Amino acid sequence: MTPPIKPQIPKGFRDFLPPQKALRQKVIKTIQHTFEQFGFEPLETPALEYASLLEGKYGEEGEKLIYKFTDRGGRDLALRYDLTIPLSRVVSMYPELPKPFKCYQISPVWRADKPQRGRFREFWQCDADIVGSDSVLAEAEIIATMYSILKALNFTGFTIHINNRKILNGIARELGIEDHAIPALLRIIDKLEQKGIEGVKEEMFEKGFTETTVNAILELYDKKYELSITFSYLKKRFPHSQALADGITELEDLFSYLAAMNIAEGNYRFDLSLARGLDYYTGPIFETTVDEPRIGSISGGGRYDNLIGMFNSTPFPATGSSFGLERIITVMEELALSTAGGSAGDVMVAIFSPETEHDALQLLSLLRSAAIRSEIYLRHDKMKKQLAYAASRNIPWVAILGPDEIRQGTVVLRDMSRGEQKTVSRSEMVTVMQRELHQP
Amino acid sequence: MTPPIKPQIPKGFRDFLPPQKALRQKVIKTIQHTFEQFGFEPLETPALEYASLLEGKYGEEGEKLIYKFTDRGGRDLALRYDLTIPLSRVVSMYPELPKPFKCYQISPVWRADKPQRGRFREFWQCDADIVGSDSVLAEAEIIATMYSILKALNFTGFTIHINNRKILNGIARELGIEDHAIPALLRIIDKLEQKGIEGVKEEMFEKGFTETTVNAILELYDKKYELSITFSYLKKRFPHSQALADGITELEDLFSYLAAMNIAEGNYRFDLSLARGLDYYTGPIFETTVDEPRIGSISGGGRYDNLIGMFNSTPFPATGSSFGLERIITVMEELALSTAGGSAGDVMVAIFSPETEHDALQLLSLLRSAAIRSEIYLRHDKMKKQLAYAASRNIPWVAILGPDEIRQGTVVLRDMSRGEQKTVSRSEMVTVMQRELHQP
Repeated sequence: MTPPIKPQIPKGFRDFLPPQKALRQKVIKTIQHTFEQFGFEPLETPALEYASLLEGKYGEEGEKLIYKFTDRGGRDLALRYDLTIPLSRVVSMYPELPKPFKCYQISPVWRADKPQRGRFREFWQCDADIVGSDSVLAEAEIIATMYSILKALNFTGFTIHINNRKILNGIARELGIEDHAIPALLRIIDKLEQKGIEGVKEEMFEKGFTETTVNAILELYDKKYELSITFSYLKKRFPHSQALADGITELEDLFSYLAAMNIAEGNYRFDLSLARGLDYYTGPIFETTVDEPRIGSISGGGRYDNLIGMFNSTPFPATGSSFGLERIITVMEELALSTAGGSAGDVMVAIFSPETEHDALQLLSLLRSAAIRSEIYLRHDKMKKQLAYAASRNIPWVAILGPDEIRQGTVVLRDMSRGEQKTVSRSEMVTVMQRELHQP
Repeated sequence: MTPPIKPQIPKGFRDFLPPQKALRQKVIKTIQHTFEQFGFEPLETPALEYASLLEGKYGEEGEKLIYKFTDRGGRDLALRYDLTIPLSRVVSMYPELPKPFKCYQISPVWRADKPQRGRFREFWQCDADIVGSDSVLAEAEIIATMYSILKALNFTGFTIHINNRKILNGIARELGIEDHAIPALLRIIDKLEQKGIEGVKEEMFEKGFTETTVNAILELYDKKYELSITFSYLKKRFPHSQALADGITELEDLFSYLAAMNIAEGNYRFDLSLARGLDYYTGPIFETTVDEPRIGSISGGGRYDNLIGMFNSTPFPATGSSFGLERIITVMEELALSTAGGSAGDVMVAIFSPETEHDALQLLSLLRSAAIRSEIYLRHDKMKKQLAYAASRNIPWVAILGPDEIRQGTVVLRDMSRGEQKTVSRSEMVTVMQRELHQP
């Protein structure tokens, strides 16, 4: 053993102590339950992948954030950076998976990002993906899943923004922008909400777009049209783009599907300013924002028809979306949508004295066999200290068994919130506790 | 994007496809539920720690297996090797945690071990620990937890082996073995089950123990005494060792607690040959084996009173145990204790033709609002192909809605296992499905 060192946690990493971890588990459970209700099946890939699998997939900026190292065997390994590239590896390696393959992953990913408020080097993603369907039904299913999860988490003020890369590409091409310049343009447009028209204008000039192009594009964003007008306006404005027409048809289908699935109209809308930063999207894209607090998007995704095929000769159409667990938790905490964790248990059996230990343990067994969350105080301390311990852990009931109670076949039940106690017979204890715990 | 590469997974790592992942989730859920029933609270620490935290903690052999690297900021980091050292960091860093601190962790750990059958470089541990109690009640609580988990997982033929480092240390000192040589001796004894008396004898001679010592020790293992005789025999044989006497008293208390907690006598026993490999144990130690298959221990642990204090001036007594998830799964698969995962859903809504999509989606909504696990077929294919897809995913029911059914307000429900179908009214569909799914 080395001499003692000062215990520290690396910068950008976090410990989750019981109340926080309990809240995270609760949220994950809800997300997982909805995924499974909607027919998504669980998938898990390793934390470590060959570095070559991840390299060249996340753009120049992302590339720098990959945790990479060489192991003792000389292999270049990397920590999982997202859940999409591992999924595309899985689909290539196991051709026997039935298609459409509907799967979900809830796992941590690692990025050597600059630590700042709300940004961490280890964070959890909750992804749902559908591989092997080119129908917009798949998008409807993904959006319905995201919607149902937010509903199940008691979110109300949220908007799912929907756009289509085909529309954006169509517009860009009609305006004479060359294909290789489109990704840069999309990354700028994606910042419209954040930087405003003037900020975006400036950045477009910086990147060398002409004044005519810039004006033609920004003209589209001055208007806040109703959905149908926007679609017909766009078709009139760019009548020769097949991509744009196809993109609009897809969204029209998608919106009609969402209506058939009873997704509340107020929770989604067409948003021409949504572009998404990643290069690989090919069709409908979506992103969810909340009215409060202002923390950017809490989920995002879209169709990526070329990514899954990159490892073999058969490309698979695919679409999916990812929830950021940390942002969901932030919103829930700020809007007090959930009380974290609750109590560590329902009953603590106190220890009156060393002589009563065995009777106390028998009582504990009785509670446990009735599936009541219970534990026993694990030291010999004064009763006052034992009660303080139960209080510090929010345990609502303490059962006390002294020599008198043992003789009489009774037990004292102390209601910690009221500071009251009552004596009941041992045989009715379980019934009393069950009643108290279900009707507080 | 880089050109396509052959997709591979690093050696010693695994993907968990849906059926396997579903089984793992099921087992984790059971373990987690029992931990919480018994008053343990969840804890999560990061995958990456400062390398200095882990160095010098796992012995010479273990040290080589730590995944270490230097990040771009020049920090030496390491992947979590077990869950105990991070716990000891957490206890030191957050003095506000109420003591006794009862916590559990279910997380992956990483070791650059030689991949071989049943040994992986990424595997999950399920730990329960109690920090801040020096009472043997804490051991009783840990063992009761392990016992209840195995019962909940339908294990029957298992034995929790129990020993005490104080007894082993007492014997060794009485035989004149110096303190510095005791850890090596314990590591040899720990292999008794695996190597037999002769193998152990040979290894002891190799390590330089004298013939008198070797004979005196092995003499203890020739006998298969009943529990009480063994304790009294040991006390008679080594009458001057206070450590041995203390160790026996602790185990006597522990066994009396286990009896009071209704732990079945056939599932635990004193085992003088249990030593545990790690150096840091100080008191009672335990390990669980199963009768079949022969795969070594599925859980192990013990008291480690000096480890938690290593990072600061206040040492905390602690005890705990760890389940190896992979071995639990192996046993369950080999003994067919659980059917993996089951179906991906309860009902698949088929798509008769593009014109019926919206009606199909409405039907899907209806099923989902009744919390029936349901999904819709996501492509346009012939009905035969749609049915084959549902079969490949073990979905027991398919709902079909053609133009006739839409007109008549009915729906066809196909029982996939029987290959039969019936027509019901749309309004009674949910009731019919609920009845069918609960009474198969």
